[in-house]
Amino acid sequence: MKYSFRNDYSELCHPEILSALIAAQNEQNIGYGLDIHTENAKRLIQEKLQSNNCDIHFVTGGTQANATIISHILRPYEAVLSCESGHINVHETGAIEGTGHKVYTVAGQDGKLSPTDIINALTYHTDEHMVKIGVVYVSQSTEVGTVYSVAELKALYECCKENNLYLFIDGARLSSGLAASDVEFHMLKDLCDVMYVGGTKIGMMSGEAIVLFNEQLKPYFRYHIKNRTAMLAKGFAIGIQFERAFQDNLYFEMGKHENELAHFLSHELKSLGVPLLSESPTNQIFPILSKEEIEELKELYDFEIWGEVEDKIAIRFVTSWATTKEACIELIEDVKNVISK
Amino acid sequence: MKYSFRNDYSELCHPEILSALIAAQNEQNIGYGLDIHTENAKRLIQEKLQSNNCDIHFVTGGTQANATIISHILRPYEAVLSCESGHINVHETGAIEGTGHKVYTVAGQDGKLSPTDIINALTYHTDEHMVKIGVVYVSQSTEVGTVYSVAELKALYECCKENNLYLFIDGARLSSGLAASDVEFHMLKDLCDVMYVGGTKIGMMSGEAIVLFNEQLKPYFRYHIKNRTAMLAKGFAIGIQFERAFQDNLYFEMGKHENELAHFLSHELKSLGVPLLSESPTNQIFPILSKEEIEELKELYDFEIWGEVEDKIAIRFVTSWATTKEACIELIEDVKNVISK
Amino acid sequence: MKYSFRNDYSELCHPEILSALIAAQNEQNIGYGLDIHTENAKRLIQEKLQSNNCDIHFVTGGTQANATIISHILRPYEAVLSCESGHINVHETGAIEGTGHKVYTVAGQDGKLSPTDIINALTYHTDEHMVKIGVVYVSQSTEVGTVYSVAELKALYECCKENNLYLFIDGARLSSGLAASDVEFHMLKDLCDVMYVGGTKIGMMSGEAIVLFNEQLKPYFRYHIKNRTAMLAKGFAIGIQFERAFQDNLYFEMGKHENELAHFLSHELKSLGVPLLSESPTNQIFPILSKEEIEELKELYDFEIWGEVEDKIAIRFVTSWATTKEACIELIEDVKNVISK
Amino acid sequence: MKYSFRNDYSELCHPEILSALIAAQNEQNIGYGLDIHTENAKRLIQEKLQSNNCDIHFVTGGTQANATIISHILRPYEAVLSCESGHINVHETGAIEGTGHKVYTVAGQDGKLSPTDIINALTYHTDEHMVKIGVVYVSQSTEVGTVYSVAELKALYECCKENNLYLFIDGARLSSGLAASDVEFHMLKDLCDVMYVGGTKIGMMSGEAIVLFNEQLKPYFRYHIKNRTAMLAKGFAIGIQFERAFQDNLYFEMGKHENELAHFLSHELKSLGVPLLSESPTNQIFPILSKEEIEELKELYDFEIWGEVEDKIAIRFVTSWATTKEACIELIEDVKNVISK
Repeated sequence: MKYSFRNDYSELCHPEILSALIAAQNEQNIGYGLDIHTENAKRLIQEKLQSNNCDIHFVTGGTQANATIISHILRPYEAVLSCESGHINVHETGAIEGTGHKVYTVAGQDGKLSPTDIINALTYHTDEHMVKIGVVYVSQSTEVGTVYSVAELKALYECCKENNLYLFIDGARLSSGLAASDVEFHMLKDLCDVMYVGGTKIGMMSGEAIVLFNEQLKPYFRYHIKNRTAMLAKGFAIGIQFERAFQDNLYFEMGKHENELAHFLSHELKSLGVPLLSESPTNQIFPILSKEEIEELKELYDFEIWGEVEDKIAIRFVTSWATTKEACIELIEDVKNVISK
Repeated sequence: MKYSFRNDYSELCHPEILSALIAAQNEQNIGYGLDIHTENAKRLIQEKLQSNNCDIHFVTGGTQANATIISHILRPYEAVLSCESGHINVHETGAIEGTGHKVYTVAGQDGKLSPTDIINALTYHTDEHMVKIGVVYVSQSTEVGTVYSVAELKALYECCKENNLYLFIDGARLSSGLAASDVEFHMLKDLCDVMYVGGTKIGMMSGEAIVLFNEQLKPYFRYHIKNRTAMLAKGFAIGIQFERAFQDNLYFEMGKHENELAHFLSHELKSLGVPLLSESPTNQIFPILSKEEIEELKELYDFEIWGEVEDKIAIRFVTSWATTKEACIELIEDVKNVISK
Repeated sequence: MKYSFRNDYSELCHPEILSALIAAQNEQNIGYGLDIHTENAKRLIQEKLQSNNCDIHFVTGGTQANATIISHILRPYEAVLSCESGHINVHETGAIEGTGHKVYTVAGQDGKLSPTDIINALTYHTDEHMVKIGVVYVSQSTEVGTVYSVAELKALYECCKENNLYLFIDGARLSSGLAASDVEFHMLKDLCDVMYVGGTKIGMMSGEAIVLFNEQLKPYFRYHIKNRTAMLAKGFAIGIQFERAFQDNLYFEMGKHENELAHFLSHELKSLGVPLLSESPTNQIFPILSKEEIEELKELYDFEIWGEVEDKIAIRFVTSWATTKEACIELIEDVKNVISK
Repeated sequence: MKYSFRNDYSELCHPEILSALIAAQNEQNIGYGLDIHTENAKRLIQEKLQSNNCDIHFVTGGTQANATIISHILRPYEAVLSCESGHINVHETGAIEGTGHKVYTVAGQDGKLSPTDIINALTYHTDEHMVKIGVVYVSQSTEVGTVYSVAELKALYECCKENNLYLFIDGARLSSGLAASDVEFHMLKDLCDVMYVGGTKIGMMSGEAIVLFNEQLKPYFRYHIKNRTAMLAKGFAIGIQFERAFQDNLYFEMGKHENELAHFLSHELKSLGVPLLSESPTNQIFPILSKEEIEELKELYDFEIWGEVEDKIAIRFVTSWATTKEACIELIEDVKNVISK
């Protein structure tokens, strides 16, 4: 096989991040995220956020971050509101429900929620015989590669605040999501109550940075992390990675790189006449091909089958920090050959 | 500070393991532990176990391994039996109870359970108004550094099988535990239903290998891992580490090294007239010193305060794969100076 | 207010059932459902089921029965399949999710599931990143008053068995549901794995009889009931009620009575030109009236607002074992007056 | 068998309470505890408490009340502190752990906790690797029949408030507990944050009244009750019973009656030279007899075996509102005969 466009977590980690780990090899560090690297990482993230009073905690993976945050926010009778396509609804094997909470879903549009969706959900839940919506879950970028604009997030957050709801932004692909929208990293402190800054899908070996902006959510979060089995003994292994990623603009450049190559791919595919399922501005694109074409491509490349579109099939190409222009050019060549048969 | 004897997870990872990670830097691997390195790691562990029909799964940390295994075994009304000193009882912030299960404890002896403890626990639980004991939890080595012999584990496992209980061995420090006992790695397949082979505390950056021997426990374990938020996207990052650790005898040599230096320390301390809280044959030793002596030592070394022993205090020194003979010699010199004042 | 058609649990209990309670007033009975009345009740239900090897347990309410049964069946990563309109999905304040399980919903038709719905749900859930469907939940009658036929339940149960799923029938309104369908009580033993026979909505003060047909589900159910806080100290208070209800055909006659009056109401309403939201053959009917008409009726009767239908509103009338023909005639008269203005 | 002294929930309910139920037989009431009887019951309890700003909710049983209250108070990483002998620790089949929370136990004295126990528990739990104690659980009377004095409860509550802990009093046998102590019902509003007033064990068919004094605990409790499957459709069936029990002093007289007969029994037993396990001032007493004597008594009476005391055995006699002086005199006669052989 030539190359995998299956996802953005196929490569170990960015060489700069590996170098940072290697550099720390002969150190002794305190456990459980109380070390100096983690401390630095937090400070550097705060600097980029232009905020020195948010609380930051590191966990290893996305599902873990989602379940830890949501179960920290909610009381037993409360539910999280999500798009039907939301990662917590579909692809977490009931992990949120495993913490005791309903994921209440609405259809949404292009993988996104609107204030109207929130109001409708609240209106539907009238009394104590139904769950109480407690937190709204969105992701930047979304499961289908779309992004929220500043205006959209502001409107959502206003709506949440007016209705005593928390807003949580899942940033598994935040770097790519920011590079594709008008949302700048530092703005996020005013656009939600809590978010996580994804590492696993943005060039790190593992690790997500949970950022708590809302004072209400800060107390005892370390207890909660441990209770949810998400506290890592060698927390410094994650601290070191985030320290490096936020030392300069590495974290943000990785997302830009991903998007640029994805744009190149979508532009070239459209030039070849290959339709795309959606106009995704981020690092996931969804070309539509025939079954035969896909069979041929599968021998050369790894990618995900997304779903049927009439008599054809949508597939997903994901670019990562490690994807090269060369690999993309070769892919386009091969698609060209395949579809011209 | 000269050196930390606080625990065995202060260093990133063994250089050989880091080399293995570096070597994989330019690869693309399939996610979620379905990659070739994880496959190899499983095969190598199976070979050392002389068993090709156990199921192996990797998770990131010990509390996670414990909670995932125990909640997989038990039905809602069932409890896990543990020593009062058991890690799951004391130091996991209610993570086991967080999965809905009582940790029923008995005093035990030297951090260990006996068949009599099991029988007593079963006798105590008479009917449906009390929990039903479903699994027995032990660790090798234990929280206080002791180990089970083959005969002891056999007796426990016999007792469990006769009483329809599962036996689970927590191997967070398995390498050290094995090096200090007559239990050989391959024997474990006949001595319990499930165990985990610890990586975090034995030279890896993170990672524990859950080994399911009992057929009853095998189905749908991957679903359960994901539901418990313990499935890592870049599973190969753990697979690579275990692949290296079990390629030769590295995993077992690290434990031997730890024990040798711990034995050196306890021998020398006794020579100096420093009493030890217990006769630990593994990599944790518990010297008893006066408050003043400890205050002085604390300026030079990092270690844990274990508890009061009459008017003195027991502290804990832990050796790791990275601890050097030189560091130990220096420590002994410094203890000598401190106590001779 | 003249009368409440709000629901079928507005009256304490059927006079015969009250008499049975009064008759037991001077007895001493063993607690926790181990008494002779409960024993008799079980035997009488078994006789009506023509089955002597089903297990029967009593709990106090419907949500409790649903949560206890579903959490007994499922492993942590498993979900229950339900219609969107299912009681467990909408009106239990997340009680099922509170036991850790996702309620996966499909639209269904007329409040009912079909084998196709099951197959589609199974097809959608492809791997360990998604929940595993473990049990199918239906109710007889459904939330919208419809019923399954024998053929429909047979098809569902066949489909479940072929796909290793359990089928659970919620019989909160079973008496009414049976009276309106070709399903006879004794047939149920061959049409599902577990059901509950509702008492609260069928003339009892409280109490539901859980019937376990499938051998797999029988062990340790009393432990599970207690763990779910559903074991009543004075279990005999429920046993006495079911003993009386199943001594003759009282249980089944109550449902027939409910349906007869509901049919009378729907027939008369249609004669008056009042449209019904659906053709419900059971004790719930859904007339559609204007807002003004409803405002007027509300001063005379209590009933539930069901939802908007274009510019009008559907309301719900529920008949109970206690509803009289006279009350129904008067209601019809009053509707007639209201709509003729 | 002549009579059962096994427990205080062997009889259906007090005749006055049954009369109240019969009187309501022809009514229609609103469901879910929103009816007028429940409203009255709340008002009457408030009057006896001399408090009009506590919130009152009714559930069906004691384990349900305990689990609902405790899981409402605690965050996921928090635990409840209890005596080892506490009902929630031993006899609830892990129901509290089933809601995700550890029951942390201390030995206590005579079934009771002291401020020292609380302080020790807090001191033991040092950081986020251990659970955080969030609520202290005591019962009046205790599992072994003892009672707290006003001074003792005051000291406990002071200690709780100083340490940001909630104090919860389980009043399953409150009527008997109050009659045997200097605690008057109305004082309770200043002696804890939440309690439940037991009905099942004090003359009612079923039902416990949860009283929330602390403002923090009031919001959304009805949601929580429903989520925990504890909301009864025919809530008025419980409301009617409490309405009657608190209309005059019936609730408190039942406890007095129980205690008087228990005192009579213990006085007579001591006169006969039968030792008692403890000096219980409430409706549970624990005579110590030989195995042979117990075998003989068992043919005439039903009672619980409590445990071995050297070569003899302690049994438990419980008096209820329904126990007659005649039954007690006869029991004493029979004990006399048995021990004189």
